[in-house]
Amino acid sequence: MLFERVAIIGVGLIGGSFALALKQARACAHVVGAGRNPGNMNLALQRGAIDSIAPDPAAAARGADLVLLATPVSHYPKILSSMSLHSKAIVTDAGSTKRDVVAAARNAMKEKIAQFVPGHPIAGAEKSGVAAATPELFRNRRVVLTPLPENPAAAVSKVEQAWESCGARITKMNPDEHDAVLAAVSHLPHVLAFALVHDVAARANAAQLVSYAAGGFRDFTRIASSHPEMWRDICIANRDRLLEEIDRYSKNLGSIRKIIEAADSAALEKLFSDARAARQRWLDGEFES
Amino acid sequence: MLFERVAIIGVGLIGGSFALALKQARACAHVVGAGRNPGNMNLALQRGAIDSIAPDPAAAARGADLVLLATPVSHYPKILSSMSLHSKAIVTDAGSTKRDVVAAARNAMKEKIAQFVPGHPIAGAEKSGVAAATPELFRNRRVVLTPLPENPAAAVSKVEQAWESCGARITKMNPDEHDAVLAAVSHLPHVLAFALVHDVAARANAAQLVSYAAGGFRDFTRIASSHPEMWRDICIANRDRLLEEIDRYSKNLGSIRKIIEAADSAALEKLFSDARAARQRWLDGEFES
Repeated sequence: MLFERVAIIGVGLIGGSFALALKQARACAHVVGAGRNPGNMNLALQRGAIDSIAPDPAAAARGADLVLLATPVSHYPKILSSMSLHSKAIVTDAGSTKRDVVAAARNAMKEKIAQFVPGHPIAGAEKSGVAAATPELFRNRRVVLTPLPENPAAAVSKVEQAWESCGARITKMNPDEHDAVLAAVSHLPHVLAFALVHDVAARANAAQLVSYAAGGFRDFTRIASSHPEMWRDICIANRDRLLEEIDRYSKNLGSIRKIIEAADSAALEKLFSDARAARQRWLDGEFES
Repeated sequence: MLFERVAIIGVGLIGGSFALALKQARACAHVVGAGRNPGNMNLALQRGAIDSIAPDPAAAARGADLVLLATPVSHYPKILSSMSLHSKAIVTDAGSTKRDVVAAARNAMKEKIAQFVPGHPIAGAEKSGVAAATPELFRNRRVVLTPLPENPAAAVSKVEQAWESCGARITKMNPDEHDAVLAAVSHLPHVLAFALVHDVAARANAAQLVSYAAGGFRDFTRIASSHPEMWRDICIANRDRLLEEIDRYSKNLGSIRKIIEAADSAALEKLFSDARAARQRWLDGEFES
């Protein structure tokens, strides 16, 4: 048994799926959960994601050998400050940004920071809550760990094993690199999708417009159904990188606008062909999650 | 039998699917196809989408009672000019823009313009070619017709019946309204997706970046795999509307950028919540195709 007692703080899509996957892999004896929404917590219990409900994160973490933070990142400081961890306990998280998480954890955990191994499973969906959780969510998906210099190798290894038992593939990066990569391929696309939906929804004829949308619009905007509080935190925590990405994208869109305005057929077709070919290369091998 | 001889000019995803659906509905006796790519045309014959291959559009149209143009719109003038239609023949099309199509058809067909009933099936996929064609492509999808004042009611009705036999739902609009609606919910999202793929693909670390992309990025960029020549024509033909949409979107993105820069949590969460709620309303009833 990899863990005796696992505490899940925030038993939503990610926390619930992690718990279900660990249980399916028989990697832990007992899972205790804590969360804000009683209805969701009862469902987590009914679905067998957790074995018991703790009244708060500190109670859940007491005696746990692994704690997963799977709440919006803005809740971490309060949660981490409230916990009294035993010396063998490992804390990890599922936050989509890592520089701010590391800073918050250092501040809250002080000399216990060696016990915190930051992580980010690159999986998710536009659905939220334990109702959408599945033990298969992380299968063949990437989990990025951004270990700290203070982490003992054994602690990092335990977190790796936990995610591997969920079927995930582990990569390690530093928090800076993580935040730069995710700004480009995740945070920017989310902002672009939110902006499009917001743009269309604000119009008097929004319902009519959308009734003429095809599958492309639905796919394009799928990520605009993502968790608003979580995405608020991500955008603000990673805003320096995200603003760079927005500026870069806006410049790019401006160049395409000029080509369209000039009715430059050859340039436009080349641009579209290049994009299609690049995407095909990615689909052929490099879209890995 | 609705039609004796149907001519499909451009037997790709749309033309091929239309032919397969008409045949499945036993709505036509013989389908003849014309197209530029011999391999694709042979496959259309093998798949039973067409019964014979004509050497060129004029030969295909000879004796046809319905002609569907399903090529990139920029080919229409040459194709329409080459045809000598008998007086009962109806021509329709599947072009994604309508003002330019009507103008081109008027110019090429002269006094025969009454025989041209412009249309646009709002269906499609990032795949191209008859290999991707299916008789189910138009089932429960919208087809917009933009009839001309010159069209006899009987001609419009025949085109409606053709699409209805493919399972589609018909709406009528004028070409202006069509082009404005589609600029917002189709042409703009395609440009945004092409811009994102182009932006990422141009970087030295594109392969690494994309390997950390999750399903959201894949969905968001799906439409960037659309047919480059077709999308070139759409963007240029509808560029006045599309430029308005790009400008409106850029302004909207700029407002969101300011909120992120100011780290205005409340405003950002409201914006994301509003977008999510709007999308949910659409999913609940108004995303109709």
